[in-house]
Amino acid sequence: MQVRGAPALGIAAAYGMALAAREFETDDGIRVSQRLESAAKEMIAARPTAVNVAWAVRHLMELACSSSERDIPGCLLARAKEMHQEDVSANKNIGRHGADLISDGSAVLTHCNTGALATAGYGTALGVIRAAWETGKRFDVFHTETRPFLQGARLTAWELVNLGIPATMVVDSAAGFVLKEHNIGCVVVGADRIAANGDTANKIGTYTLAVLAKENHVPFYIAAPTSTVDLELPAGDQIPIEERDPSEVTHLVGLRTAAEGIGIHNPAFDVTPHEYISAIITECGVITEPFTKNLASTVSENTTKR
Amino acid sequence: MQVRGAPALGIAAAYGMALAAREFETDDGIRVSQRLESAAKEMIAARPTAVNVAWAVRHLMELACSSSERDIPGCLLARAKEMHQEDVSANKNIGRHGADLISDGSAVLTHCNTGALATAGYGTALGVIRAAWETGKRFDVFHTETRPFLQGARLTAWELVNLGIPATMVVDSAAGFVLKEHNIGCVVVGADRIAANGDTANKIGTYTLAVLAKENHVPFYIAAPTSTVDLELPAGDQIPIEERDPSEVTHLVGLRTAAEGIGIHNPAFDVTPHEYISAIITECGVITEPFTKNLASTVSENTTKR
Repeated sequence: MQVRGAPALGIAAAYGMALAAREFETDDGIRVSQRLESAAKEMIAARPTAVNVAWAVRHLMELACSSSERDIPGCLLARAKEMHQEDVSANKNIGRHGADLISDGSAVLTHCNTGALATAGYGTALGVIRAAWETGKRFDVFHTETRPFLQGARLTAWELVNLGIPATMVVDSAAGFVLKEHNIGCVVVGADRIAANGDTANKIGTYTLAVLAKENHVPFYIAAPTSTVDLELPAGDQIPIEERDPSEVTHLVGLRTAAEGIGIHNPAFDVTPHEYISAIITECGVITEPFTKNLASTVSENTTKR
Repeated sequence: MQVRGAPALGIAAAYGMALAAREFETDDGIRVSQRLESAAKEMIAARPTAVNVAWAVRHLMELACSSSERDIPGCLLARAKEMHQEDVSANKNIGRHGADLISDGSAVLTHCNTGALATAGYGTALGVIRAAWETGKRFDVFHTETRPFLQGARLTAWELVNLGIPATMVVDSAAGFVLKEHNIGCVVVGADRIAANGDTANKIGTYTLAVLAKENHVPFYIAAPTSTVDLELPAGDQIPIEERDPSEVTHLVGLRTAAEGIGIHNPAFDVTPHEYISAIITECGVITEPFTKNLASTVSENTTKR
C-alpha cells in the first residue's frame, strides 16, 4: 500500500521490472527472463484486482524476450519511462473527454482517490473534475472519506485543497443522503479492472454508489485508461477481489476500536455490473453501450496505434 | 453522545425530567412547571432527530402539570421508572414479532447499534436478531462499522460477541457487496423517528441500505417501539436532521486524518421513504402498507391501552 491506484500500480510495476532486470543483468539471457517472470508473478500477486500491474509486466516481459538489444535493463527502463509519460498524457485526455460530461452549476460526487497520487500524474476521475474546473466550469464537488484506508480523506481532500477546488467530504454511508438531497449532476469514479462487457471492479463502495445513482436518475461514469480494460475476462464476476487485512477495519491509527472477537470481512473492491454504467471515459474517448463491441474496438485501435 | 439510541434517549430524558423536578422542588407549583419546560426544551434541542426525547418529556410535562400529587419529583421518578420497564418489555415484544421474519439458514444485515446499549434494554433491530437466535434459528449476521461514530464497531460488535452470536463486520461502503454477494434474507435496522406515512429517519446510511436492499430484492425492516412514531409529522421531509461536528469525520481517535482545508458535511441521520420499507416491527405487531392508516390505528390503540 505504499503505491495504490490502478494506473500508478501499473507504472510502478513497469519500473519494478526494469529494476528486476538490472538485478539479474550479469546472468545469461534465458535466466534473466526466468527471473523476470518470477518478479512479474510476485508483483501481480501483490495486488490481484488491478489489471494494470499484469498489463505492465506482460508488456515489459514481451519486450525483454523479443529485444535484440543487449542492454535489457536499459531497454526496460526506457520503456517504463515512456509508459509513465503515456499514462500522464492518457489521463489528460481522459480529463478532456470527461470534462464535457460535467455541467456548469451542478455537483459531482466521487469516491476514493483517483488523482495525480493514484496515477502517473493528473488523475482519472479526479482528472475529469480537474479538467472541467480548468475549462472554467463551476460546480460543487462531493467526495467520500473511503474507509477503511481513507484514500478520500487523506489523498483526495489534499489534492482538491491543493488544486484550489472547493469540495465537501462525507462519510461513505452519507453518499445516499448526498445523492438524494443535493443537486448531483453525475458520479465519476475510477477503475481497477474493466471486463470485456464493461463490468468494472473498483474501490469497495463503488457498486453502492452506482445503485444509488441509478435510483436517483444520476449518470454514473467510470474514468480509466484503456490499460485498465481486460478483454480476456468476459464479465466482472471473474475479476479476483482482494481481501485485505482485518486490522484495516478493527484498528484506527494503530488503536483497536472494534470489539474483540468480532469477525471481519474486508473486500477492497467490488464489481459494478455494466448496466449501471452510463459511460466509460477513456483517453480515446467516451465509450457507451454496447460496451462489449465498443470496448473491444477502442482497445484494439489503441493497441494498433502503438 | 454519552447516551445515544432513540429509545435510550427517551428514557434518559424521562429521568432527566425527574431530576429537573427535584432540583426545583422548593419552588411553588407554577415556577416548577416553567422550569421543567426549560429543561424539556434543552433536552429536545440536544438531539433533535430522535422523537423519543420529545415524546418522553411531553409525557412527563403533562403528568407534572395535571398531577394532584404534592410530590411532583417522586411522581415523575416513578413514571420514568415505569417507562424504563415499558421500553424493555416493548423491546422484547418487538423481538418476538420480528423473529418470525428471520429465516433459518439465511443471513441478516444490520446497521449502527440498536441493542441493549441503545434502548432501556434488550434492543430493537438487534433485539429481533437476538430473539430469532434465542428461538434456535441459525443464520449469519452482518453489520456495518457505522462511521463516523463507529456504533457498529464499538457497540454492536461488543453486544453480539457477548451474546455469543457469531457475526461479521464490514465497512459501511461494503454493504452493497454483502447484499449482492451473500445470501442476505433481510435487512433490519432501528429508527429515530417514523413519520405518519412511514418515512423513517435513522442513522446516516440507512437510506443507502434500503436502496441496496430494494435493488437486490431483499426485504427491508424497521424495528422500533411506537414511541418512535410521530403522527404529527405527515412525511419524512419534515424531520429535522442533526448536523454533527466536522471533527467526527476529520479526526480518528483524536488524530487529524483528513487533509486540512476540506469542507465537511456530517448529517447524523437520513430519511428512508416508506416505499423502501417492507414492514415496521413494533411492540404491537408487524405493520405493513398502507402505513398511514396502519401506523395511526396501532399508535392510537396502544395509547388508549395505557
